[in-house]
Amino acid sequence: MNKKIAVLPGDGIGPEVTAVAVNVLQKVAEKFNHQFTFEEGLVGACAIDATGNPFPEKTWQLCQSADAILFGAIGHPKYDNDPSAPVRPEQGLLAMRKALGLFANIRPVNTFKTLADASPLKREIVEDVDFVVFRELTGGSYFGAKGRSDDRNSAYDTCTYTKDEILRITKLAFEAAGKRRKKVTLVDKANVMETSRLWREVVQQYASDFPEIELELMFVDNAAMALIQNPRRFDVILTENMFGDILTDEASVITGSLGMLPSASVGSQVALYEPIHGSYPQAAGKNIANPMAAVLSAATLLETSFNLMEEGKAVRQAVEEALNNGFVTVDINPTNHLGTREVGEKICSFI
Amino acid sequence: MNKKIAVLPGDGIGPEVTAVAVNVLQKVAEKFNHQFTFEEGLVGACAIDATGNPFPEKTWQLCQSADAILFGAIGHPKYDNDPSAPVRPEQGLLAMRKALGLFANIRPVNTFKTLADASPLKREIVEDVDFVVFRELTGGSYFGAKGRSDDRNSAYDTCTYTKDEILRITKLAFEAAGKRRKKVTLVDKANVMETSRLWREVVQQYASDFPEIELELMFVDNAAMALIQNPRRFDVILTENMFGDILTDEASVITGSLGMLPSASVGSQVALYEPIHGSYPQAAGKNIANPMAAVLSAATLLETSFNLMEEGKAVRQAVEEALNNGFVTVDINPTNHLGTREVGEKICSFI
Ligand SMILES: CC(C)[C@H](C(=O)O)[C@@H](O)C(=O)O
Ligand SMILES: CC(C)[C@H](C(=O)O)[C@@H](O)C(=O)O
Repeated sequence: MNKKIAVLPGDGIGPEVTAVAVNVLQKVAEKFNHQFTFEEGLVGACAIDATGNPFPEKTWQLCQSADAILFGAIGHPKYDNDPSAPVRPEQGLLAMRKALGLFANIRPVNTFKTLADASPLKREIVEDVDFVVFRELTGGSYFGAKGRSDDRNSAYDTCTYTKDEILRITKLAFEAAGKRRKKVTLVDKANVMETSRLWREVVQQYASDFPEIELELMFVDNAAMALIQNPRRFDVILTENMFGDILTDEASVITGSLGMLPSASVGSQVALYEPIHGSYPQAAGKNIANPMAAVLSAATLLETSFNLMEEGKAVRQAVEEALNNGFVTVDINPTNHLGTREVGEKICSFI
Repeated sequence: MNKKIAVLPGDGIGPEVTAVAVNVLQKVAEKFNHQFTFEEGLVGACAIDATGNPFPEKTWQLCQSADAILFGAIGHPKYDNDPSAPVRPEQGLLAMRKALGLFANIRPVNTFKTLADASPLKREIVEDVDFVVFRELTGGSYFGAKGRSDDRNSAYDTCTYTKDEILRITKLAFEAAGKRRKKVTLVDKANVMETSRLWREVVQQYASDFPEIELELMFVDNAAMALIQNPRRFDVILTENMFGDILTDEASVITGSLGMLPSASVGSQVALYEPIHGSYPQAAGKNIANPMAAVLSAATLLETSFNLMEEGKAVRQAVEEALNNGFVTVDINPTNHLGTREVGEKICSFI
């Protein structure tokens, strides 16, 4: 197979973990006789520094010409304390999602047996947690009209959704549930938000054609509790952009494996794969970041964009083997650990 | 002291736990020689059933004539699956908050030593957790313009804030922090929301006059993680309405004491006190609900609205004593427990 992968390392630890993922993909190509070409592009703070634009035209063209995108993370502390700055790294991320039509962010959350004790939650609560969140990614208050009054004394953000925007991600969520434990939990705030009521309308109507799939309706405040009290109850969670942002981050820490969780953002054309951890600037350049989430993102890329199931499985097994042998970074084992690159080499050696 | 207390039991377990709180207040009145008069009003589903209006005019008048309001909970499953119904219990709650100008919801979250093992989180994480959330309660997308397009195929909600709305709750949060560990964490999504940027502007400017108070800025997705990973880092959390809704519910379960947490909603005039647990309809009428959150709400009422500090302390000590003696409901001890009323009698006997 001959494929072109756009590599967008981004900021902070992005470049280090992405480099490991690229090595792993290269090893897969050798071993399974594929031809992967990698081309790098700028996005985020590094793109602002180099071009003044957090998502340069050139990066956009690169993405459109690629068969899949491997993404690191964006964000830099120098922008964090000034969210009113006219140009910010996050704008690059949002522009990229919108420009590429990446309307669904898919985040599996599962507990790694060897890591269950790393969770802040009790073992009996996090054991065997296995769900996936479908977060809408190009709608809601992220992209609605926003601004200030003329005297700048008041501000507004508009959350908007159309039936079509809701329907297309609903289809993906139900499809996934059909291959899993056949349950979709729609998370909204329909007792307050009109957009949430539209979500319920569309999802309930769509669900009526799939009687074999259970549809559960849950308010977002309840979901924030249920994720902690009983995360095993979830199979597929479907939700809008902002609620998804909050709940996926909450979900990512309950298993104790934030550094292990990949994600995929899909749309009509090319898909993007990224670890769900952020740019973690304090760790940048120190060779301490956990590369496993980036590597598992590469596995998801192989499976989802290239339909290379065996190859994806080989990568997952290599990660599992590294874990079982204790070849892990400091976040997983504070007393006995390897560096980012060294963990990467171990994973490659297991492929 | 001569005071009138409006009692709004509401729905579900509201009436049972409120009845216990009223008994406790009556015991306090006897013991400390006060005269409390209680007058009941309808709100929520029971008000819809009786009058067609979830917050009847009569209840509003009662509240305005009272020195403080003791509230139970609202909500009934018959409305939950139909959030598009023209009249819903939640509207009563929102109308009440708005009509009474209750702009700040104050929720202390702390771990009870005897209950630390009931938490879904590990003991070493939840021990000594002690923070308080200031949630803005009459602004944001709860009250902004909302609706549908003419063809009903799209919907919108508007989140709006004015500087004044932000400033008044900011003052309360800083005042509280001054009496505590002198740290305020502003939670927002300033990398995306214009309203969040206004919050940062107002809060940062206000904070510059209080150099002795540390101001921490945190994105809401990070806060959702930090509440689980390291809840002890928080002292005072300040946030807007919707984020506050989600985070306070998340916070309420980390300590393992959802049935123990009171809250106060304050504004320019009369204040309202309520347990933070909901109406819990499955438990209604069964004499199994934990009345302690309602009783602690009554303690907060005594302290905050009537400045009766000694009386408030007596109530808190009585609750502590009931806990220490194992006089608790089933949520706290599944194998050895008393009923709602019986726990109430024990608490009264300790005053
Ligand atoms: C950086 C920020 C704009 C972004 C978001 O909120 O979508 C991030 O938190 C994420 O979840 O990918
Ligand atoms: C019932 C609902 C409208 C309400 C809210 O979201 O404010 C509740 O969740 C709360 O927190 O008091």
